[in-house]
Amino acid sequence: MSNQETGTETRRLTINRDRLRAEMEDLGEIGRTEGVPGINRPGFSDADMAARAFMADRMKALGLLVSMDAVGNLSGLWKTGEGPAVMVGSHLDTVPMGGFYDGALGVAAAMECVRALMDAGVTPPCPIEVIATAEEEGRFGGMLGSQALAGAVDPAWLETAVDEDGTRLVDAMTAHGLVPGAYETARRNPDSVKAFLELHIEQGPVLEAEGIPIGIVEGISGVFKWSVRLTGVANHAGTTPMDLRKDAFVGLVDFARQIPAIIAGAGTDQSRVTIGAVELKPNHPHTIPGEAVFTLIGRDISPDVMRALADASRRTLEAVAARFGLGLAIDEQSWLDPKPCDREVIAAFARQAERLGLAYKVMPSGAGHDTQFMADLTRAGLIFVPSIGGISHAPEEETAWSDIEAGVNLLLNTITDLAAR
Amino acid sequence: MSNQETGTETRRLTINRDRLRAEMEDLGEIGRTEGVPGINRPGFSDADMAARAFMADRMKALGLLVSMDAVGNLSGLWKTGEGPAVMVGSHLDTVPMGGFYDGALGVAAAMECVRALMDAGVTPPCPIEVIATAEEEGRFGGMLGSQALAGAVDPAWLETAVDEDGTRLVDAMTAHGLVPGAYETARRNPDSVKAFLELHIEQGPVLEAEGIPIGIVEGISGVFKWSVRLTGVANHAGTTPMDLRKDAFVGLVDFARQIPAIIAGAGTDQSRVTIGAVELKPNHPHTIPGEAVFTLIGRDISPDVMRALADASRRTLEAVAARFGLGLAIDEQSWLDPKPCDREVIAAFARQAERLGLAYKVMPSGAGHDTQFMADLTRAGLIFVPSIGGISHAPEEETAWSDIEAGVNLLLNTITDLAAR
Repeated sequence: MSNQETGTETRRLTINRDRLRAEMEDLGEIGRTEGVPGINRPGFSDADMAARAFMADRMKALGLLVSMDAVGNLSGLWKTGEGPAVMVGSHLDTVPMGGFYDGALGVAAAMECVRALMDAGVTPPCPIEVIATAEEEGRFGGMLGSQALAGAVDPAWLETAVDEDGTRLVDAMTAHGLVPGAYETARRNPDSVKAFLELHIEQGPVLEAEGIPIGIVEGISGVFKWSVRLTGVANHAGTTPMDLRKDAFVGLVDFARQIPAIIAGAGTDQSRVTIGAVELKPNHPHTIPGEAVFTLIGRDISPDVMRALADASRRTLEAVAARFGLGLAIDEQSWLDPKPCDREVIAAFARQAERLGLAYKVMPSGAGHDTQFMADLTRAGLIFVPSIGGISHAPEEETAWSDIEAGVNLLLNTITDLAAR
Repeated sequence: MSNQETGTETRRLTINRDRLRAEMEDLGEIGRTEGVPGINRPGFSDADMAARAFMADRMKALGLLVSMDAVGNLSGLWKTGEGPAVMVGSHLDTVPMGGFYDGALGVAAAMECVRALMDAGVTPPCPIEVIATAEEEGRFGGMLGSQALAGAVDPAWLETAVDEDGTRLVDAMTAHGLVPGAYETARRNPDSVKAFLELHIEQGPVLEAEGIPIGIVEGISGVFKWSVRLTGVANHAGTTPMDLRKDAFVGLVDFARQIPAIIAGAGTDQSRVTIGAVELKPNHPHTIPGEAVFTLIGRDISPDVMRALADASRRTLEAVAARFGLGLAIDEQSWLDPKPCDREVIAAFARQAERLGLAYKVMPSGAGHDTQFMADLTRAGLIFVPSIGGISHAPEEETAWSDIEAGVNLLLNTITDLAAR
């Protein structure tokens, strides 16, 4: 509180952890369903819209200018002056049976930062906008809110998207008074936004394992998804000697065992290569697998490394197929390049963390976040707080409140840092 | 035909291949279904019973004493004298969409041997019985006919067995006038049977690959069936670094890659170890597999080798589970000891093959056959003829007629060999 020494921008501002926790507890009552564990606020559900209404009331109580755009993004603008705003927030929707923190913490953290600034009598030199984005989690595919803000909506998807029960996205939206066809009206002008900051739980085990309270995200990992088909010959497992088999699963095993070597040769310690789904045919105990279809997901923070991982995987699969006499078909179902976070925002997070004496780790995000689309609109940055056990998207999701306090203090001081630049 | 030299028992008797082929063609018309490929004579179906009626007529035409027992075994007795009979045959039922040769060839071969003996004016010194067993293929579980002959029927199974459509075995049998509750009346007295001989297609690729027309089966491989469960932690594949995972599929891969080493260390070139069915949970592309459940089928002709394979598999699985921090549960769902064929019958087959100048290979049977139950009743032996491409239980099933001729000639000469002893 010694702002006489170096001016307002160097004050060590702090949030009120108990106030933030109380708001999280209130918000966490929305989406509780009798007999269903966790938080249930799928995008454009009644509970999701109730959470937006709750947060709108809280914004109004702070004197923010509250509006909701055509696709459901909730905005609370603290109009401290003219010019582009520092936008801060995350999403309010959850997966079914989701956790208490995912998304909601980033919105409540933004609200708490505004309260802390008001409490401290600090009026930032530019507007601060709290944003609660819509349909991040993917009931209909995900990230609609941030895509609309950044001008990245695919109109064909918007028109055809359905959820698991067959409900159309456009019907779910219009039922709550939203206007899907007007998604372009939600698109922001880059000149009106100075930066976007998001705080989110890590959803992985790294920070907890290393005992570090804060992750400064260098970028969202790119991801490629392959469906790979190895084709052998389905024969009787009793009558076919080992050396006369064309066992598709043996081919899969020989490829999968080489994944660590593929990463060692072509990847980095940030690379992730996963076989998550496997289907054998005929998948009968007494029959040699004639076909193995499996997914291969590769991730890295560098597009060059992604390409090297894909190339090495392809070469290895080709060698395996040749060695075991198997047919091979690789279907690249998607390829998303990595999305780097803004260097100046990363530098601001790091500068403030050092000033506050908070340990941090610069790390990639292996999961998708609103930040990856907001980066198309403005300078965007993301920080993580630790997930206990790496668990998320589950009722057991948990983050220590001491870590939350550290993370939101960093968010707060970075807001003032960037607002002043 | 120089029987003056060494007596009747050393005559090189030969079958009439065209006659056998014609009978097979006639038999193969039964079980053809419009729009369904292959032969369709599931046990106790109308087509199966029609095949029995067809073969009964052919037996009667030869002057055999024809009877059907309570469980559907069709017998044609050539009563050339008193004393125990040499029994020869196989089964007439098929799997759905099955092949032309499986089972039927062994019955038609036995019929042709009787015809060839009659043609040659050879009257064996003991009765010859052609047998067509019932429900070998397993519509209701399999081997009912030979189990009944050998006294190995499980009455609880008989009472409760159902097919895939839920039809009860007892209902399917009584619909055709059979008497399932009287299965004990089908049980033969060992004193009335001198030996049992079966000719069957190999259903594997070994004979074709080695260019050998005849396999003399040393025994039916034993088989153990395990269901193995490896339990890890299902986490987000994007946010969980490779070194912080407990990936159940990675454990399965590490075990599976060691199967060749398990066989090299504990098995023989007759050992077969197969992972045929795999289920991952949640089996989602973007989620690290939290659970891998898979079948492990081990086979060998020696019970000691089977035990060694099982022990080595267990040790390897335990090491894998410990290395990757996974839970391990092994459920031994079945264990069937190997069933050796009779040494004297094997010797007779080999002796006659050498006399006839037919190349042969002594080999195990990796598939089950009536012989394995008949071995509980009498001296039992089994010979194989090559399966082109190792294919069976499919419309593409095929055996070269030159190989069939060689195999049935061996069967014929072995019948007279054993009948004389």
